[in-house]
Amino acid sequence: MIMKGTLYCVGVGPGDPELLTLKALKIIRTCPVLAVPQSRTGVVTAQGILLKALDGCGVSLEDKMVIAMDFPMTRDDQVLQGAHEKAARRLQDELDQGRDVCLITLGCPTVYATSIYVHRLVHEAGYDTEIVPGVPSFCAVAAKLQQPLCEKDEALIVIPGNNAHRKELLALEGSKVIMKPSGRLAPIQEELRDLQLLDKASMIERCGLPGERVYEKAADAKETGYFAVLLVK
Amino acid sequence: MIMKGTLYCVGVGPGDPELLTLKALKIIRTCPVLAVPQSRTGVVTAQGILLKALDGCGVSLEDKMVIAMDFPMTRDDQVLQGAHEKAARRLQDELDQGRDVCLITLGCPTVYATSIYVHRLVHEAGYDTEIVPGVPSFCAVAAKLQQPLCEKDEALIVIPGNNAHRKELLALEGSKVIMKPSGRLAPIQEELRDLQLLDKASMIERCGLPGERVYEKAADAKETGYFAVLLVK
Repeated sequence: MIMKGTLYCVGVGPGDPELLTLKALKIIRTCPVLAVPQSRTGVVTAQGILLKALDGCGVSLEDKMVIAMDFPMTRDDQVLQGAHEKAARRLQDELDQGRDVCLITLGCPTVYATSIYVHRLVHEAGYDTEIVPGVPSFCAVAAKLQQPLCEKDEALIVIPGNNAHRKELLALEGSKVIMKPSGRLAPIQEELRDLQLLDKASMIERCGLPGERVYEKAADAKETGYFAVLLVK
Repeated sequence: MIMKGTLYCVGVGPGDPELLTLKALKIIRTCPVLAVPQSRTGVVTAQGILLKALDGCGVSLEDKMVIAMDFPMTRDDQVLQGAHEKAARRLQDELDQGRDVCLITLGCPTVYATSIYVHRLVHEAGYDTEIVPGVPSFCAVAAKLQQPLCEKDEALIVIPGNNAHRKELLALEGSKVIMKPSGRLAPIQEELRDLQLLDKASMIERCGLPGERVYEKAADAKETGYFAVLLVK
């Protein structure tokens, strides 16, 4: 009987390859199988970070099996569920052969990560699983701006760009983050202006990734790419 | 003329020494001066994590100057401000001598960290500074519980135990975290019960540190130490 492998769901951090943890590096180094989610632009962003991080650490991907998991860019729950189930079955095939699998994810797997759904299916199917947390993008953005994300007794409110109650949440007391407000920024800028918060908002696009753009004033930005984070203090 | 040193404000992660980033390790390795905030119990928690992390990485603290910064455990803003100013002056003395200083902090420096106030004073005094983000405790807690912290379009609301609007924030839609609710848990449990959220709350004390305790149901916990985090899903 073959001992089943373990699924490690590993955060590689927000972009800067040096923000990988020692634990993430160790697991990537030792797992024979690497599962990599494709981003919607078709660019394998997490793998790109990873390759840079491993460069110089003496780790090569040549000896590993790399599984690219293609997740459709849709908000249709049924289509997504189907893709996650297919990916989970693929990983379970490897685990059944006794191979440990490292499923990498940008940022932290606990923070709005697609890979968590695949992890959940494999976990619920009774396999051994572990989540290795990483540095989330909002921490990297605050650090780059040399500002605290939150201090003393203030609340931190993290709002996905598509959250239906975005404006009400922005109006609350505390430190606010808007995650991935992809597309036109004007509606968000208008909400912030209404709330007299626009001059308190900063934004970074692709923090730590190639093409990074820092806006000390989010008022100066026009459109945003996929990896944008606003900080409203 | 001596070139002034740089202050690095470095997160060592939530407790597990393996959750240090490659960047944190590199900076700790190269800085001749290490500044370590004392925790309120007088135990130098961050330094403890650090020593374990460095053990085996071939880094020794023997050749470094270690500055213990004593922050009073008070909510008196004036007393705190005085302590932060004193610490900042001490670090500036080193920077003036051309020595780089690594100010370590538990978790991430951007998330409710005392060291950020010292960083801010040194930054405002015109010195070169950099913040190196780390894995925050709430990510490590969610990872250990094998749960997402937040998913899809839901908001993530992080509430310090002493926040005056705790109950109203807990009543909001989304994923909630309560940070460091030190002391008696009963008032928080009562609020959660009122909101029919008590059976959705988990808690970890000292996640990744010696003496870690995991409560799948926060209802089962009685008192909490300083490093407790509740996750309410």
